[in-house]
Amino acid sequence: MLMNIEEIKGPEDIKTMSVKELEALSSDIRKFLIASIAKTGGHLSSNLGVVELTVALHYVFDSPRDKIIFDVGHQSYVHKILTGRAPAFKTLRQFKGLSGFQKRAESIHDPWEAGHSSTALSAALGMAVSRDLNHEDYCVVPVVGDAAMVGGLSIEALNEIGSEQRNMVIIFNDNNMSISQNVGALNETFTRLRTSKPYNDLKQDISGALSTSKAGESVLNVMRNVKNTVKKNISTNSFFTELNLDYIGPVDGHDIKSLIKTLKIAKKHRGPIVVHVITKKGKGYSFAENDTSGKWHGVSQFNIETGEVLNRLPENHCSWSEIIANTVCDLAKTNDHIVTLTPAMISGSKLEKFFSLYPERAFDCGIAEEHAAVFAASLANAGQRPFLAIYSSFMQRAYDQLNHEMARMDLPVVIGIDRCGLVGEDGATHHGIFDIQLLRALPNFILCEPKDGEEAQQLLYTGFNQQHPFAIRYPRGSNVYQKVSEYQSIPIGSWTRWRFNQESKAIVITYGCDVDRVISKASINEIPITVINARFFKPLDIEMLKECAQTKLPVIVYETDILSGGLSSAILEICNDLGINMPLVRIGIKDHFVEHGSLPQLRKVEKIDLTTLFNKITELIHHAD
Amino acid sequence: MLMNIEEIKGPEDIKTMSVKELEALSSDIRKFLIASIAKTGGHLSSNLGVVELTVALHYVFDSPRDKIIFDVGHQSYVHKILTGRAPAFKTLRQFKGLSGFQKRAESIHDPWEAGHSSTALSAALGMAVSRDLNHEDYCVVPVVGDAAMVGGLSIEALNEIGSEQRNMVIIFNDNNMSISQNVGALNETFTRLRTSKPYNDLKQDISGALSTSKAGESVLNVMRNVKNTVKKNISTNSFFTELNLDYIGPVDGHDIKSLIKTLKIAKKHRGPIVVHVITKKGKGYSFAENDTSGKWHGVSQFNIETGEVLNRLPENHCSWSEIIANTVCDLAKTNDHIVTLTPAMISGSKLEKFFSLYPERAFDCGIAEEHAAVFAASLANAGQRPFLAIYSSFMQRAYDQLNHEMARMDLPVVIGIDRCGLVGEDGATHHGIFDIQLLRALPNFILCEPKDGEEAQQLLYTGFNQQHPFAIRYPRGSNVYQKVSEYQSIPIGSWTRWRFNQESKAIVITYGCDVDRVISKASINEIPITVINARFFKPLDIEMLKECAQTKLPVIVYETDILSGGLSSAILEICNDLGINMPLVRIGIKDHFVEHGSLPQLRKVEKIDLTTLFNKITELIHHAD
Repeated sequence: MLMNIEEIKGPEDIKTMSVKELEALSSDIRKFLIASIAKTGGHLSSNLGVVELTVALHYVFDSPRDKIIFDVGHQSYVHKILTGRAPAFKTLRQFKGLSGFQKRAESIHDPWEAGHSSTALSAALGMAVSRDLNHEDYCVVPVVGDAAMVGGLSIEALNEIGSEQRNMVIIFNDNNMSISQNVGALNETFTRLRTSKPYNDLKQDISGALSTSKAGESVLNVMRNVKNTVKKNISTNSFFTELNLDYIGPVDGHDIKSLIKTLKIAKKHRGPIVVHVITKKGKGYSFAENDTSGKWHGVSQFNIETGEVLNRLPENHCSWSEIIANTVCDLAKTNDHIVTLTPAMISGSKLEKFFSLYPERAFDCGIAEEHAAVFAASLANAGQRPFLAIYSSFMQRAYDQLNHEMARMDLPVVIGIDRCGLVGEDGATHHGIFDIQLLRALPNFILCEPKDGEEAQQLLYTGFNQQHPFAIRYPRGSNVYQKVSEYQSIPIGSWTRWRFNQESKAIVITYGCDVDRVISKASINEIPITVINARFFKPLDIEMLKECAQTKLPVIVYETDILSGGLSSAILEICNDLGINMPLVRIGIKDHFVEHGSLPQLRKVEKIDLTTLFNKITELIHHAD
Repeated sequence: MLMNIEEIKGPEDIKTMSVKELEALSSDIRKFLIASIAKTGGHLSSNLGVVELTVALHYVFDSPRDKIIFDVGHQSYVHKILTGRAPAFKTLRQFKGLSGFQKRAESIHDPWEAGHSSTALSAALGMAVSRDLNHEDYCVVPVVGDAAMVGGLSIEALNEIGSEQRNMVIIFNDNNMSISQNVGALNETFTRLRTSKPYNDLKQDISGALSTSKAGESVLNVMRNVKNTVKKNISTNSFFTELNLDYIGPVDGHDIKSLIKTLKIAKKHRGPIVVHVITKKGKGYSFAENDTSGKWHGVSQFNIETGEVLNRLPENHCSWSEIIANTVCDLAKTNDHIVTLTPAMISGSKLEKFFSLYPERAFDCGIAEEHAAVFAASLANAGQRPFLAIYSSFMQRAYDQLNHEMARMDLPVVIGIDRCGLVGEDGATHHGIFDIQLLRALPNFILCEPKDGEEAQQLLYTGFNQQHPFAIRYPRGSNVYQKVSEYQSIPIGSWTRWRFNQESKAIVITYGCDVDRVISKASINEIPITVINARFFKPLDIEMLKECAQTKLPVIVYETDILSGGLSSAILEICNDLGINMPLVRIGIKDHFVEHGSLPQLRKVEKIDLTTLFNKITELIHHAD
């Protein structure tokens, strides 16, 4: 081993290395990544793909003076290693541990934070403009994957970057993959570029230009030559040249020597330039390299030798995504109009089966939440019954479309809001804690969350058999799943309750998986409470609320999402308007962002765990005695 | 006159006309539009630009069987005339009158509704897919302007359309304008296409292909020829061919004969094809034709001869946009770090002066709200003090970026939320009634609204002198404006009150312009109420709320936005959590979408007018007596 990976203090440690040494270092980093992620879980494939690229970036550019921005940021592990954070990898994605994304508070080498796709180019433009306004001189280097590059936000940014012509080196990290297979017309365009003939010629010309530079010509002249060389080498116009961006490549993303040469050219280039780097997702770990489904994109702990994932679901359990996806498949058997849409999450949303059973009714829209939402609305408007599977935090991207297209036109799209509530290790950008607050103010929308696998099936059935926009939210994790013997519609806005009787000393209103958890704990410990399953956030069960108020019992609303504007807020509004005085004890996420960590730990820290709830219940019951 | 415009019953009326007659009809329609909009106000320039195009579309395609979708929809007036709605133009944009956009309930010829930009392509894909699933056969014809075409949502849709290859005729309505001047690299690309040499050759080849078709070859073979002809004619690849879309054009959008020829070709084409139509915004009305600022995009009543706009502001008044923009200009004098961003609304947000005084600190991002928001966040992160001017309803597009980039990273962007509350004639898609509900749940955000021009200046000053994301919302309309003699920061979260004394019989909590309106009416009519100016929605003035509660007086929260999750909801939450029992009378917009109409009329219909408020006050005071 060249040097202990954990001893790397910063990019200066690699500046004096030879290409051979950088190659050896890359190999060590790769081993370190596999060994480390096998223990902690994390984003594996995308990081294995950018080892040489990141090494070359830190060799050529001078972070933190130069700003390297990783789009999304889940592929910044190698960057973290090269900026002195390898020792922290044992805490990766754990509470107070190393973040899975770039994080400003974590290192001076992280100039930006992300988590959602396609923000790096807009961020880069902001830095470049600010640099120029301050008459400073440094490089801004956004690193953007091919799937993220075609998100609408990226194109909006490229459009202004092409017009502004600020100095910027855009690394186009092209692995020909989204989380799973890539989609869309631009992907085909990129494939043409990827396999374009001028690749070898270009390498020649670049080295030619480099040697000219050494000969002492003025940088500007050299750059003009480079520009012409580059342009000359692309026999057809590329997508990027249409956007007034210079383009160089493609270059082999695992060939450090070529990378360094090309990046050096790009660094001196005036104006924005796209460096097309071809990488292999999962490079160096065969299970990940051969993965086309996205299974190795983000992983939990695994056995390195066998590739076996160590976290197993409990017996009879299915992931929530799978429960929902299976049910949609089942309903689609008898309803030809059910079509399914996903913004690049076939695997995460467990839609493989639907896509395989009903390919002509299944649409992977790519990382394009806004488009997916309008597309779904239009399908509904045309008489189909679309199911749009979308993660809660990514759905934020489509808020205007949910409001404007679905709610305003009152179209019967069924939205499967996946990963609602806290998601754990992915942290602040991925927690799905805003959707209740967002959707409950949208006229015409119905919003619900099942307490278990059975209710999930009936709620989905209900959603496909009514005529309004209908969102069903469900968390990470799993639940017992057995196909129901008969589908039955659930009355819209109806709640259920457990132990609403004379013995009850308090009422807990909650939703989702916590309903059964609270019931179970109350049963076992013989705590005399009523538990209400508030399975609809909109509309509310007003009759049941009135009956609660009549009991004069203390009422706790136990929420696991942002409190502002959430379920208890809705209850307070309705009670106020009905003239009901029913003070609530509100448990939920306070007005701040929640960082990363395991779910149990985060629930504890946020004081939304069962212990907090039952302490409060005990306090209230004793207080009443 | 060929025929009375108001007698047109539907597209069938023009199917038998000659080109000469269609030209005469176009001329009559143009006169009708100018005369009609001069009386009612409305979108003028964009409609004058598409007269011949719309006539040709209805000549070639068979609406309602074929689906013509106007992106945004404000340029659908000619379509409305040709589908029998001319007689209703005297009610244009009035309550219960003709909508300014396509509206499904208004006509069978309106297959979709919009209002916000760049949704037509996703909608078209939904219709095309649904058509194919149902084994139906009709044309889907989205009409998209050049500014809307480069919005991220459009590109996301094009990416999937290019991949899906469904039959679809995309009309690229290229007037080389946004509302004002166009921006962005793609605009330059389109200019190259626009002025490309093959234009005349192409017309030749199209007619050649047409005559081949008449000769009786199979449609498919003809189409192959057409496809080749089309491709052959574009000497450079176009932006659209990169997206795997066939492209035909450019064609003169005011030459009906050429339009018909080209559209007939496109109608028979297999797969998606882009028809590039060059139009002139404002065509035929010199004031509008020569407008580069966007003044004639949407107009109120005007004098046809002089071009003079008839609605004048009251003495000493400035529009709210202007008050804010002037203040930003003034603050920028002494603060070099203030930079301004707008998503294509220089004119609407009255930023002309800033753009002219500080061109290097002013950015028109085009119709790209998401990008503009991230760009602003990045500028703030880099130490600048960005001001992002954005209409409330369009800000919905950037919700995730406000949440994820600004709030989560706690970056000091100042957002000027223009056109908040009801906006009147533009209707449901333009009312800015959701932003309080959206922003108050975002950690770190500060949200406020000034009651008058003076407070606006001090709040803006406050915003630029603190370190969090800070949104200041202001409505359409105007207020008294005089530059303050001295800027003073307003304590964050502080409210003010009027007549908080022993005589007070009720408390009205309200915000914005309604503060002075309520005070004025209460003064004149000697109604003993306290009026609270809740100028901050987040954070709230908790001390003042406590003092209100102590009075035990009836409290009315008078809101002019959506009630769900709004100001009164926030007050109910905080009172509940503080153990304060203070029932509220809540006046505000109920859980539904508000249609178009004049502001006074809408306020009356929605029961958020002053009469409703004071009736309620009287009722409460009498009840208390």
